Amino acid sequence: MTGLAGRKSFGSDNHAGTHPDVMRAIVEANTGDTVAYGADPWTERAVADLKRLTGAEGEAYLVLNGSGANVLGLGLLLGRHEAVICAETAHISTDECGAPERILGTKLLTVPAPDGKITPELIARRLVGHGDEHFAQPGVVAVTQSTELGTCYSLAELRAIKEFCAANQLRVFLDGARLANAAAHLGCPVAEIASCADVLSFGGTKNGAMGVEAVVVMDRSVTASTPYLRKQHMQLASKMRFLAAQFNALLADGLWLRNAAHANAMATRLAAGLAEIPGVDVLHPVQADAVFARLNADHVAALQENWAFYVWDETTSTVRWMTAFDTQESDVDAFLADIASVTGAVPV
Amino acid sequence: MTGLAGRKSFGSDNHAGTHPDVMRAIVEANTGDTVAYGADPWTERAVADLKRLTGAEGEAYLVLNGSGANVLGLGLLLGRHEAVICAETAHISTDECGAPERILGTKLLTVPAPDGKITPELIARRLVGHGDEHFAQPGVVAVTQSTELGTCYSLAELRAIKEFCAANQLRVFLDGARLANAAAHLGCPVAEIASCADVLSFGGTKNGAMGVEAVVVMDRSVTASTPYLRKQHMQLASKMRFLAAQFNALLADGLWLRNAAHANAMATRLAAGLAEIPGVDVLHPVQADAVFARLNADHVAALQENWAFYVWDETTSTVRWMTAFDTQESDVDAFLADIASVTGAVPV
Amino acid sequence: MTGLAGRKSFGSDNHAGTHPDVMRAIVEANTGDTVAYGADPWTERAVADLKRLTGAEGEAYLVLNGSGANVLGLGLLLGRHEAVICAETAHISTDECGAPERILGTKLLTVPAPDGKITPELIARRLVGHGDEHFAQPGVVAVTQSTELGTCYSLAELRAIKEFCAANQLRVFLDGARLANAAAHLGCPVAEIASCADVLSFGGTKNGAMGVEAVVVMDRSVTASTPYLRKQHMQLASKMRFLAAQFNALLADGLWLRNAAHANAMATRLAAGLAEIPGVDVLHPVQADAVFARLNADHVAALQENWAFYVWDETTSTVRWMTAFDTQESDVDAFLADIASVTGAVPV
Amino acid sequence: MTGLAGRKSFGSDNHAGTHPDVMRAIVEANTGDTVAYGADPWTERAVADLKRLTGAEGEAYLVLNGSGANVLGLGLLLGRHEAVICAETAHISTDECGAPERILGTKLLTVPAPDGKITPELIARRLVGHGDEHFAQPGVVAVTQSTELGTCYSLAELRAIKEFCAANQLRVFLDGARLANAAAHLGCPVAEIASCADVLSFGGTKNGAMGVEAVVVMDRSVTASTPYLRKQHMQLASKMRFLAAQFNALLADGLWLRNAAHANAMATRLAAGLAEIPGVDVLHPVQADAVFARLNADHVAALQENWAFYVWDETTSTVRWMTAFDTQESDVDAFLADIASVTGAVPV
Repeated sequence: MTGLAGRKSFGSDNHAGTHPDVMRAIVEANTGDTVAYGADPWTERAVADLKRLTGAEGEAYLVLNGSGANVLGLGLLLGRHEAVICAETAHISTDECGAPERILGTKLLTVPAPDGKITPELIARRLVGHGDEHFAQPGVVAVTQSTELGTCYSLAELRAIKEFCAANQLRVFLDGARLANAAAHLGCPVAEIASCADVLSFGGTKNGAMGVEAVVVMDRSVTASTPYLRKQHMQLASKMRFLAAQFNALLADGLWLRNAAHANAMATRLAAGLAEIPGVDVLHPVQADAVFARLNADHVAALQENWAFYVWDETTSTVRWMTAFDTQESDVDAFLADIASVTGAVPV
Repeated sequence: MTGLAGRKSFGSDNHAGTHPDVMRAIVEANTGDTVAYGADPWTERAVADLKRLTGAEGEAYLVLNGSGANVLGLGLLLGRHEAVICAETAHISTDECGAPERILGTKLLTVPAPDGKITPELIARRLVGHGDEHFAQPGVVAVTQSTELGTCYSLAELRAIKEFCAANQLRVFLDGARLANAAAHLGCPVAEIASCADVLSFGGTKNGAMGVEAVVVMDRSVTASTPYLRKQHMQLASKMRFLAAQFNALLADGLWLRNAAHANAMATRLAAGLAEIPGVDVLHPVQADAVFARLNADHVAALQENWAFYVWDETTSTVRWMTAFDTQESDVDAFLADIASVTGAVPV
Repeated sequence: MTGLAGRKSFGSDNHAGTHPDVMRAIVEANTGDTVAYGADPWTERAVADLKRLTGAEGEAYLVLNGSGANVLGLGLLLGRHEAVICAETAHISTDECGAPERILGTKLLTVPAPDGKITPELIARRLVGHGDEHFAQPGVVAVTQSTELGTCYSLAELRAIKEFCAANQLRVFLDGARLANAAAHLGCPVAEIASCADVLSFGGTKNGAMGVEAVVVMDRSVTASTPYLRKQHMQLASKMRFLAAQFNALLADGLWLRNAAHANAMATRLAAGLAEIPGVDVLHPVQADAVFARLNADHVAALQENWAFYVWDETTSTVRWMTAFDTQESDVDAFLADIASVTGAVPV
Repeated sequence: MTGLAGRKSFGSDNHAGTHPDVMRAIVEANTGDTVAYGADPWTERAVADLKRLTGAEGEAYLVLNGSGANVLGLGLLLGRHEAVICAETAHISTDECGAPERILGTKLLTVPAPDGKITPELIARRLVGHGDEHFAQPGVVAVTQSTELGTCYSLAELRAIKEFCAANQLRVFLDGARLANAAAHLGCPVAEIASCADVLSFGGTKNGAMGVEAVVVMDRSVTASTPYLRKQHMQLASKMRFLAAQFNALLADGLWLRNAAHANAMATRLAAGLAEIPGVDVLHPVQADAVFARLNADHVAALQENWAFYVWDETTSTVRWMTAFDTQESDVDAFLADIASVTGAVPV
């Protein structure tokens, strides 16, 4: 990806900076001494707010990044010998450089997942060999909400997975790096989504934070080992207040939801514009802050001269365009104009 | 530890907040979009500065916290089957909840270390069994500079270790969470200390940063796997510029050294004051930002009513008092006055 | 699988017992004291014979079972952060309960493999993301010879893989649990196969031994850590002579090759007979000691009343029939007669 | 250690071969086909006998060697984040090349242990930091019975440990590589010893077997993951009947106890003889099959010209002399005569 040249990036929601309210909260937390490692009032408030938002009866833990949230969350639910079932597009399988295998020693059993979503039927196919010591034994099903393909599970779909898992002695981990975008799309309380998981992550970084994620344990019985595993997984921040302050700002008055809803709206605007441009196929329902599209490889190259984004799959000339909390309507419109231009939909 | 009640904490250098210059650099880095994961100008500058400061011919990598720096650094140097020799007081052995063993699968072979420092003679004792497949095979020696007991290795001591290790096919990892304090104490370039290590960490967090550490690889041949291991160890920040900006501020005009020198001076002032107070024994040479002292347990309890600090060893009534970049002379003096008061050195 | 009821099992080559010559060697090794852990004359001879047979310039190590051989062998070649490319049918991926992930912390990147064999083209597809820290980085390609589907790579196919791997900084591990069967099929020296690998296993157990495998390191530079990793992987036998004696018997006068050639011949006889029976489809070239066939599920059930074998894939009604060193022509013929009978090929 | 030169080794109980009755059972198990991986009548009987002998309500599992038994046994009891408390002389800490750390990612917290035995008081010292996420959290206490120093815990001592552990949420793993020797020494049922553990190993190899150990799970609730962990730990034998047959022979009519009692008696005879020889100090109570002695280094060297044994600690000139099931009184007497001779106790 070439430089950004002053234009809004459509490369990733983490190309954006920190929301001003979040930054303000960080600066305001810088007042003299406080106890380290989380025994401070900022953290106390963040944890309480996260528990309230998700309805967790267990506990909430702040961690440093998304990899940390995913690996810690999975590890809390996995028996020492167990494997994980997930979509073959799952971030934990494709984008963590093998961290779950490396840190947890677990095997990821992937299933093909149209639009990035798995189903009880797909999970069931991976249960062959249950009880046979030669086969990897699934203990956890990992879902991502919203998914890596910019789609969202409906509550009914999530509940079906949770039910199936409960009936099959499987626990559910929900990767919520973009959970806010799903809540905004579904228009439902986070707690309704969270109730379909045993442990979930709740992302801050992609939603306007500087760098913080939460691991939320829904059920009290799982919490006992979390502080130690967080430490062993190198996810315990010493000056924790500066992580907590970010969530304080996001959760104070619904900023987390406004940010996500805005990013979603910008992606929807982009998709709507694309519908008018021949030669650009949008590939999945646009339900969060990402648009996947297929267009001529030459057009991709031409566009990349002026705009920052990633080619998702070179072999199919598929690109991913992402919005963020700070994407402006004018950014989307300028981008659309250039897309129309390079694809020949309008005269240059 | 009870609350801080508005007084300066002598509990830890991470009870302090963020230095104003560092905070300003963070805020200033919040300007629009930039590429994530380190391909940004802030990171480029931080890495270049870290390499210049340490004289590294390899590479420098920013990570999220001290546990991450230690585990990543050790892992870069360890063969899959190898063990680590370290002081029994080493942070990696006593304060990481077993993270090196958990993440790297390595065994820590500890040696008793007066004043927190190991020597070639102490290392040699752990080489028994070399070449015998039943015995753990040391591959790395880990030293801490400055040490967990507030002391510093002299350059001659470090060079002797490096030489011994080179002659015995051992590599040296230097835990530099407080390397700045050692450089300030020794009055020597960081590069002279760094040249005694194969990989080192360079701490920011305890020296005025909000939360950032660096792993510095001295020799180019070790760097190849570092980006992948950093990712697998969950230490790769997405909005990296906000980590880099902290080092930018610390390294720009010697702030890192001024901060450390000041903290050291405050510890020295504290120790000097203690020398006048009967009933308080300072236990180790005070060469960094920590003072270890032994005093009557009742006096400890009385002091803790008004001051925040940790009892290091209950059985011997040993306490640790730490200063920081923002400790004031008046804080030290007020603390000394109270110590004198509770120990009966002065009439209440 | 039901009991064997006195009939020859077609379930697995490890349903067979120990070849009488191997048993005799074990009994004869039971003569008074000898030094443990391999410093005995039996082991010395086995290692020398294995090195001669494979042409290894590195070293040969006896281990306790196939899982141990695979995990140790892979671990010798893998950097701490690296992943493995293998066929989706590979034993290391499907039949080790996730042991490579669990013990090595590595990720297996599987490729679909017709007839169980991978190719440079299939490997190349998994090299996308090379050099990108978010993607698992392949370091080793694992091939199985003969494969899990009873097929064999030709020497040309293996050499093409080796060449491709060398050109792409990948090392080759060859799972040779049934390497003898491949050598018998190809009619070539084991050394020619072994030269296509960096590390290989050489199986004894499935070829008439009681329980022993070898890990052979072709290149001296890889050997240094092997004794320690063998110990850490719990694969170091104390009374090693009894493992070595088994290889002594197998390697003494070509017993290993006679056993494998015989098992292969019995599988070929079975496949030839099946060609005459309508309603039974043989699925892969029969080049070792296994026959995969598809037949009516009711016929499978009927056959299993009298014969021991495994259903390989319930959904496609695919079975695996295996022969062994001690399968008799009369066993095959009786089995064929029953197959013909239950499938209605002949009047009952 | 030099060669054995036809004399009985005093180097280790695994220098001995296989007891003739065990070898006979192995040979007799070689009768045609049987199902692999333990679904055979030999294994069924071995498991039943082991459960009866130990009084286990859980399950018994055969494994390939002592390292495997220790690591599997510990892993069954350890939470993912937990550490192990053990004697600093414990085999798991000193003789497994770091396998527990490597395979389980656990930290071993060692305590100095006079005569190789730990106590509630010693364990308690390692519980400092309980509940603090910075400190390794002990979950298991590992004891060895009989110990690495040839001593035995009394039943009262073991019960005190068990009671203390139960009161402190700690589980007990008992390394029983030489449990038979302890049972012989104490003259009590194995079940009384086993009742003080949550999981134990029961050794065959050092007591006349060719190579087999058992992991015995006392409590049913721990058994669920064992088959999978055994497989992942590469401890599942395919031709399991040949492991089981060894235990069949040992357990059939008390051979295990006769072997151990005999080895103990030979060690006692050796110790008794040494008491008459000036210049040889026996260091620990001789309660199993080992004698630790201190004698002049020149005398050690002279003895090693004709006898095989290990120097335990070069710096103190301490040697370990071990007997076995097949040590003869005449072996002991000849050895004693030579010791007397080289030490000058008798004229040469």
